[in-house]
Amino acid sequence: MPLKAFSTLPEFAAILADLPSADADAAEAATARNGVLTKPPGALGRLEELAIWYAGWRGAAAPVLEKPQVIVFAGNHGVTAQGVSAFPAEVTAQMVMNFELGGAAINQLCKTFGAEMSVLSLDLDEPTQDFTAEPAMDEAGVIAALLAGWEAVDPQADLLVVGEMGIGNTTSAAAIASALFGGNGAGWVGRGTGIDDEGLARKADVVDRAVALHAGQGPLDTLRCLGGRELAAMAGAIARARVERIPVILDGFICTAAASVLEKECEGALDHCVAGHVSAEQAHARLLAHLGKEPLLSLGLRLGEGSGAALAIGVLKGAVACHSGMATFAEAGVSEG
Amino acid sequence: MPLKAFSTLPEFAAILADLPSADADAAEAATARNGVLTKPPGALGRLEELAIWYAGWRGAAAPVLEKPQVIVFAGNHGVTAQGVSAFPAEVTAQMVMNFELGGAAINQLCKTFGAEMSVLSLDLDEPTQDFTAEPAMDEAGVIAALLAGWEAVDPQADLLVVGEMGIGNTTSAAAIASALFGGNGAGWVGRGTGIDDEGLARKADVVDRAVALHAGQGPLDTLRCLGGRELAAMAGAIARARVERIPVILDGFICTAAASVLEKECEGALDHCVAGHVSAEQAHARLLAHLGKEPLLSLGLRLGEGSGAALAIGVLKGAVACHSGMATFAEAGVSEG
Repeated sequence: MPLKAFSTLPEFAAILADLPSADADAAEAATARNGVLTKPPGALGRLEELAIWYAGWRGAAAPVLEKPQVIVFAGNHGVTAQGVSAFPAEVTAQMVMNFELGGAAINQLCKTFGAEMSVLSLDLDEPTQDFTAEPAMDEAGVIAALLAGWEAVDPQADLLVVGEMGIGNTTSAAAIASALFGGNGAGWVGRGTGIDDEGLARKADVVDRAVALHAGQGPLDTLRCLGGRELAAMAGAIARARVERIPVILDGFICTAAASVLEKECEGALDHCVAGHVSAEQAHARLLAHLGKEPLLSLGLRLGEGSGAALAIGVLKGAVACHSGMATFAEAGVSEG
Repeated sequence: MPLKAFSTLPEFAAILADLPSADADAAEAATARNGVLTKPPGALGRLEELAIWYAGWRGAAAPVLEKPQVIVFAGNHGVTAQGVSAFPAEVTAQMVMNFELGGAAINQLCKTFGAEMSVLSLDLDEPTQDFTAEPAMDEAGVIAALLAGWEAVDPQADLLVVGEMGIGNTTSAAAIASALFGGNGAGWVGRGTGIDDEGLARKADVVDRAVALHAGQGPLDTLRCLGGRELAAMAGAIARARVERIPVILDGFICTAAASVLEKECEGALDHCVAGHVSAEQAHARLLAHLGKEPLLSLGLRLGEGSGAALAIGVLKGAVACHSGMATFAEAGVSEG
């Protein structure tokens, strides 16, 4: 990629205004195939819808899922100065080291489901600005982060999961959700890594002040003002996946908040995305409802890193394997009901 | 195994009365390990409980899950003479051929999750008796089926899934559930492979008549009178797994009905079992509630074959991989909150 794909927010917005659709012929052929596989109609439930959705984006009636990519983006947040997290900010860099050495949950899940994993640290030594006082990033800053995500996507991947690590980033996600969908901070904040009641009240107040300070912006400027770099990078990667027709499994609250920016900027921008799970972070279910996404898993995870989405790779692999590998009634000589 | 493990129902009952427990020391050591892994406390939600449960049954603080076994049992049912299924009975044998040639959903799921799969046909040419007229099996018949399941379990496996194929077997499962837990046929029957409203009413009536005819029996004789051979084989395999301390993932309505016989015979007999999913067959959720089991997945499957449980192997593999593979705070040099 010799030229940058975009260098201003209006250029990025222009890409979002012109996103490709799924291959309707492939989806139709997959629907027909699904109807003649050796099972009662509908007996694989949601797996059937998933396989047809995946077939449409991959442009094949009987697609494969062999090359999932997981990217974990890490960023630091000036808003941690407001006391919104139970963990100190240096944990972000410590966890990046843990990712690189293979010791985190996401490493084990990538191994389990055969996903290629990479970690991208985004200027950890220079946290974004405290967004209760000024915009988190200037335009050059948010563009750099969007591009980091955009360029990290492997165009040969056949599935993308983006995860994050960033002490303070549930506050950023809550502020973005409040700004995009309305409702006050108390309705969008949760305990993140585990703050107490007092911390929770402080976090809600931080969100309310930040949203008031940066009100009246469009979705992309909301991301610039309230985001962290890892949220912008996730949005950039999810947009790039769409351009490459790579399906995406969304992770938890922070990933979904970052993705919501794209949907608010351009309705349908997340049609290539499925919700991997619903997090224990209370506002995640609310955010998914706004997006009309039904989660695949509900297991009380609230770790981030892409962990819930990575776990859902197994479900999607199962769906695609059944769809593409099963015999038809005619092939197997089985009587139809 | 030179001698049969049991040759009468009282002998089988004696085994159930003396089942081994999980290794409490291993579970305690796993709980301690879980508390120092590089994640906020509880952030992996249900995966943490699952890993600790698995560790207890495997007797290791940091266990592996490398050798899952899936066994699909097939049987034919005299009760199909009552018109309770949308598919003809010959489909059982046709699907067994499909399993053997690798064309069914369960074959693809076993490949996806690295499970060893075998198929066991149980006298398909000789259906059980129509249990609206007489007991489905005599004692020798139910013992043979229980033993077929018992002996099919690989003692070296570290996880067991049992699935089934048997046209008519949702009727058998509904009758067993009604006999064990009370409630009339209408509350326990569903559409199975897809019968219409008239068929559904007929199925409920068949269940009510069968349960009335065979009332007042203990759980094991209920299995003999209302079961099919594949249900008895599943019960035998689940009991054997317990004796070998092999954890089990339960599949859908039919598998859970077969397992319920063990729990009713001996409370706690299913402590080594987790519910893999909740099926679209309406009565499955009711049955799981009776057993106090919370399903891992809820994806609208209603295929049988062990498919929902096989899909849940991925979730359990993820849980065990995180638990046993993650670094501790001390190992990774990460600050605790």
